[in-house]
Amino acid sequence: MAGKQFDVVGIGNAIVDVIAHVEDAFIDANDLNKGIMTLIDADRASTLYSVMPPAIEASGGSAANTMAGVASFGGSVAYVGKVRRDQLGEVFRHDIRAIGVHYEQELAEDGLPTARCLILVTPDAERTMNTFLGISSLLEPEDVREELVAAGRVIYCEGYLWDVDSAKAAIRKAMEIGKANGAKVALTLSDTFCVDRHRSEFLQLVEHYVDIVFANEAEICSLYETEDVEEALLKVRGHAEIACVTRSARGSVVLTADEVVTVPSWSTGEVVDTTGAGDLYAAGFLHGYTAGKDLFTSGWYGSVAAGECIGHTGPRPECNLAELVATIAVPARV
Amino acid sequence: MAGKQFDVVGIGNAIVDVIAHVEDAFIDANDLNKGIMTLIDADRASTLYSVMPPAIEASGGSAANTMAGVASFGGSVAYVGKVRRDQLGEVFRHDIRAIGVHYEQELAEDGLPTARCLILVTPDAERTMNTFLGISSLLEPEDVREELVAAGRVIYCEGYLWDVDSAKAAIRKAMEIGKANGAKVALTLSDTFCVDRHRSEFLQLVEHYVDIVFANEAEICSLYETEDVEEALLKVRGHAEIACVTRSARGSVVLTADEVVTVPSWSTGEVVDTTGAGDLYAAGFLHGYTAGKDLFTSGWYGSVAAGECIGHTGPRPECNLAELVATIAVPARV
Repeated sequence: MAGKQFDVVGIGNAIVDVIAHVEDAFIDANDLNKGIMTLIDADRASTLYSVMPPAIEASGGSAANTMAGVASFGGSVAYVGKVRRDQLGEVFRHDIRAIGVHYEQELAEDGLPTARCLILVTPDAERTMNTFLGISSLLEPEDVREELVAAGRVIYCEGYLWDVDSAKAAIRKAMEIGKANGAKVALTLSDTFCVDRHRSEFLQLVEHYVDIVFANEAEICSLYETEDVEEALLKVRGHAEIACVTRSARGSVVLTADEVVTVPSWSTGEVVDTTGAGDLYAAGFLHGYTAGKDLFTSGWYGSVAAGECIGHTGPRPECNLAELVATIAVPARV
Repeated sequence: MAGKQFDVVGIGNAIVDVIAHVEDAFIDANDLNKGIMTLIDADRASTLYSVMPPAIEASGGSAANTMAGVASFGGSVAYVGKVRRDQLGEVFRHDIRAIGVHYEQELAEDGLPTARCLILVTPDAERTMNTFLGISSLLEPEDVREELVAAGRVIYCEGYLWDVDSAKAAIRKAMEIGKANGAKVALTLSDTFCVDRHRSEFLQLVEHYVDIVFANEAEICSLYETEDVEEALLKVRGHAEIACVTRSARGSVVLTADEVVTVPSWSTGEVVDTTGAGDLYAAGFLHGYTAGKDLFTSGWYGSVAAGECIGHTGPRPECNLAELVATIAVPARV
């Protein structure tokens, strides 16, 4: 794989986040599904926005956050996702390019507006996401340029894309190009309800196709329809070449056929907003992996990136992750 | 004045801030004027944005920030300023209404886009502002509805509006309506370079028209073309009924014909981004003043609001200021 232009090529829903801090009563009063991602239509987005407190806008999107993270570590990355030529689309394009991600997609001249995710962060730092996909839902196979994807050593795909048929076709095209060009294919399961919606396809992918899978404990349990994490870990270990399972404050566990590597978490001491934590864990791991680090060190990079992310409002790094990780001693392996 | 609907009616440039953290080298490399507000055109805004790091978007605008602050203290406020029906315009309108400010202006259906201010925050927390006024520069007297302004006990005006003739006419109309209806007229000098551009008019206003003036030490010195702060304070004291002069970490001094009140600063211990500090000081003072507090307590409210503001990125309060100020003991008067 040496000599390829990009360490990672990511594909996902291109979204601008609209983030407000609320009390738990707001979640209840507005019938929101705390802690998970719910798809909403334009009318619901408008209604929910009208009752939200003042917010800030920040570029988001799960795979886009991950690519931003890898770039912040100094990795070479590209991203595929669709935004409109509107103010939020320009914000999205600016932010992802400014952090060093190759993003060549033209802004769409017509169609739905750029996707936005209305995020309510409660005092426990948990985020509740309500996504209006807008033009992101119109991602289609022709948006996936073969030469671009073929230049990636890892093709990183977001489970959320399965929610829309044309996007699913686009991601399958990306995976196939990757496989045909000797890339590793990575998939994040994204969200327990996303797993619920697409369990049979995700199982098929994890068991027979994907090389690296990212999930948290709830998602991996949902995939195998068990409440027993150990059982789920045992199952995934026999399938994907590498499975990275995050466990919030307890860090993560990285599993291969030969190894089970336990990785501690890291934090600045402040936990403000968990939006993007899983995305940034994947960023750290993928950077370590593509830089030739061992599984423990790669997982540790994930812990540092996730820890930085939850220390502030917004889903992307606010500092240079390469510099940050260099200042923190890698802990002894347990 | 009792029985009026609004404690304060504010008028100013309605702006969405685009905020990024940079090193000082960025300021130098891009010929920016550190610490001050520079007006830029659409082309320059586009060029500067293209070289900026990833940013977040947050509603701003000096007088709008002040009105948001008064509302957060529980005061009743209205705001006059112009945005376009575009995504940033909708963000501005949402945020100011969501914090409780009466904002009745229709989104303009055509014309220039909503104003934005590209803000670069350096490691010393100083903000360097580059404003593309967009449709805000088209504020005109007919945007100032007489019944609305007549309902204000204080009419708060932003010096920045003097940069555009039609806006100047609008603000003069607002001041006149205020005076005719027994309101106090308040003016912030906004920025030393703004004072430079409009010194003779500002002097005329401060000496003969305005009841409450807000400035920092550099601005009040610029107004009287002196480097001696004491001399400037002596001069302003003979003019406006109340002059509030902020002194960064040294707090503020509030001057009337009878009194010189020294007020300490307050801080959370973190100084991240000074954007909005002066605006929020004015918010706290105006809330105290309209709630019938003495000058020291009013200034102290200003200190608390400014201290909250500089503890995070973005120019508006991230918590309820009424609740915050209630948790902090008012210091003994020196």
